[in-house]
Amino acid sequence: MLNFNLQVPTRILFGKNKVDELGKEILKYGNRVLLVYGGGSIKRCGLYDRIVQILNEKDIFYAELSGVQPNPRITSVRQGVELCRENRVELVLAVGGGSVIDCAKIIAAGVMYDGEPWDFFQGKARIGKALPVGTVLTLAATGSEMNLTAVISNEDTDEKIGVGGISLYPRFSILDPALTFTVPPHQTAAGTADIISHIFEQYFSPTPGCFVQDRMAEAMLKACIYYGPVAIVEPENYEARANLMWTGTLALNGLLSTGKNTDWGVHQIEHVISAIYDVTHGLGLAILIPAWMRQVLNEHTVVKLAEYARRVWAIHGDDDFAVANLGINKTEDFFRSLGLAASLKEIGVEEGRLEEIADQATADQVPLGSFGQLSRNDVLNILQAAYSA
Amino acid sequence: MLNFNLQVPTRILFGKNKVDELGKEILKYGNRVLLVYGGGSIKRCGLYDRIVQILNEKDIFYAELSGVQPNPRITSVRQGVELCRENRVELVLAVGGGSVIDCAKIIAAGVMYDGEPWDFFQGKARIGKALPVGTVLTLAATGSEMNLTAVISNEDTDEKIGVGGISLYPRFSILDPALTFTVPPHQTAAGTADIISHIFEQYFSPTPGCFVQDRMAEAMLKACIYYGPVAIVEPENYEARANLMWTGTLALNGLLSTGKNTDWGVHQIEHVISAIYDVTHGLGLAILIPAWMRQVLNEHTVVKLAEYARRVWAIHGDDDFAVANLGINKTEDFFRSLGLAASLKEIGVEEGRLEEIADQATADQVPLGSFGQLSRNDVLNILQAAYSA
Repeated sequence: MLNFNLQVPTRILFGKNKVDELGKEILKYGNRVLLVYGGGSIKRCGLYDRIVQILNEKDIFYAELSGVQPNPRITSVRQGVELCRENRVELVLAVGGGSVIDCAKIIAAGVMYDGEPWDFFQGKARIGKALPVGTVLTLAATGSEMNLTAVISNEDTDEKIGVGGISLYPRFSILDPALTFTVPPHQTAAGTADIISHIFEQYFSPTPGCFVQDRMAEAMLKACIYYGPVAIVEPENYEARANLMWTGTLALNGLLSTGKNTDWGVHQIEHVISAIYDVTHGLGLAILIPAWMRQVLNEHTVVKLAEYARRVWAIHGDDDFAVANLGINKTEDFFRSLGLAASLKEIGVEEGRLEEIADQATADQVPLGSFGQLSRNDVLNILQAAYSA
Repeated sequence: MLNFNLQVPTRILFGKNKVDELGKEILKYGNRVLLVYGGGSIKRCGLYDRIVQILNEKDIFYAELSGVQPNPRITSVRQGVELCRENRVELVLAVGGGSVIDCAKIIAAGVMYDGEPWDFFQGKARIGKALPVGTVLTLAATGSEMNLTAVISNEDTDEKIGVGGISLYPRFSILDPALTFTVPPHQTAAGTADIISHIFEQYFSPTPGCFVQDRMAEAMLKACIYYGPVAIVEPENYEARANLMWTGTLALNGLLSTGKNTDWGVHQIEHVISAIYDVTHGLGLAILIPAWMRQVLNEHTVVKLAEYARRVWAIHGDDDFAVANLGINKTEDFFRSLGLAASLKEIGVEEGRLEEIADQATADQVPLGSFGQLSRNDVLNILQAAYSA
């Protein structure tokens, strides 16, 4: 186990009708808000009206930034920064999933930075101070509601890059599982795959001796495997939605990475793909993961991959390679059972661009990942295997 | 799953030589410290000298309160409050295990309260403001290093009572597993039992649908069961000490109780015993737990107790009662294998006082516990079974 520091200041308000406490939470930081959200879903389900009512009742001024897209754009960030400055905003309130929250985080940091917000992603500036951010989560997936990172895309350069900073932790996050009842099956599936991928990126680590972290990761994987299919079939099953939502938050709030080197190779590859093709993040990950597992399986990694197969999928057997391969097959079957596409071809990726994707994914870092240790050609192998899986 | 709020502000600095960062952490809050510790163990192992050197190097003034005992006394709290006031202390630094940390917490709150600190434990005053508390942990056990509670004994009244308050969260806790290399086998065993008991008090809950919390609890139980015996046989096994230490912290920092009613019946009974007999807390718990499990096993609780046996002890079988009983036996055998006494008789409890202990344990709350729902006579049954187990 490696040395680590951990401090997660976000206040979590979890459960039915916790939105009712929104006004009180906001007023701890001020009474001028930028309300950031995506498409029309929060209007269709009545959440928008409920929030506006709360803001009005509490005499909280709000400006709005709507239309934040999945794979949120730096152009939205720029608009948000402008709105905050024009309206002397004191807190950025994200109502949505990870894309909306990530956008809100960088708006909050951008307001306190004199330059162009894309600087943060090019290494030209570090995240310093930021306005307080609060969130009302509407999708179990990214964990952005309780962590310090944000991923933003630049449509001009086809880049999708993540950054982090202490000031980006949301001050509060309201997690009402009932708000995810209206999430359609495909998005529930992609969200579940996203959570699983976050767990994998930390679980598959070269650092030995992190027993309790590994068992906790398996606990969270079991929750996703158990409740993902339930939530798809019974969208209003509170228990399923609650377990997925809380697992999504715990899976990427720093707990699972304590004391470990983490991997994040699959995410790096997926970011390149979704920057070009605007793929749903969790879907892209689900397609890449089995191919990644098969590529990285070797005499060094087999122990861990077999442990995964035995502990998570209850696969028995003495031959580690056989057990590991069965575990990988189970993983692939699980993603397909959620209704997710199984190949890059199906989601419109062009075979002719795989080399370019491999180049970009390894442009800044080779080998890619700490458990996987991928060369550029390893990445290409993964892409080719995932292309026609 | 029930609604919950969660915010754990404590900064954790975990790993080898993290004590080196102590000065920097203290100086965030001031440069006048009350150094609180127990007996001579921190002097024997050199930790005291190391800390004093750091304080001197950073020009941090310190007063000292030494001799804080296991089952810390309200008299120590009063002394500490006095010392803080006399010396205009800005941060209370606990160097030790849970007893020292608990004492430091109530000193910190007592300084900001005009009345007598025992008022907090009699319900005459609530924990309000407190001086900042920092800790250097030397024992994997209580979890006090990352939570908001403290348990204090009153030797005049033979009472041992816990209280809590937001202001009692340590601002920082330094967790170096190597500092526990010198913990003797008996204390390592008692500490491990203490951690397990904390997990049980939250795991055995009547609240349905807390799947991810339950699987995390099992993860932590497995860590204790795996590493407890290792740390006893190989006291300088860093991996074992690190897993026990981090598990002890995670087991009682709020994570496992999210969304649940918790029990705490065994703790209530043990508090009465150790207030009278000054028993090592973890030892008392280990003796009571199997008797408690057998007492509470019925047609309502058997599902959960059988799940525990299957998931933690890998016991197979279709008959839930048989499986549950085997799990209870395994639990008892495990505590004995750590070298812990198996009966109240062995640790000096008098048979003639069991009725009085049952009365006291249920004086303020009947039924006792949410999973167990113990009557006064149930408690007596547990005590009698544990007396000559």
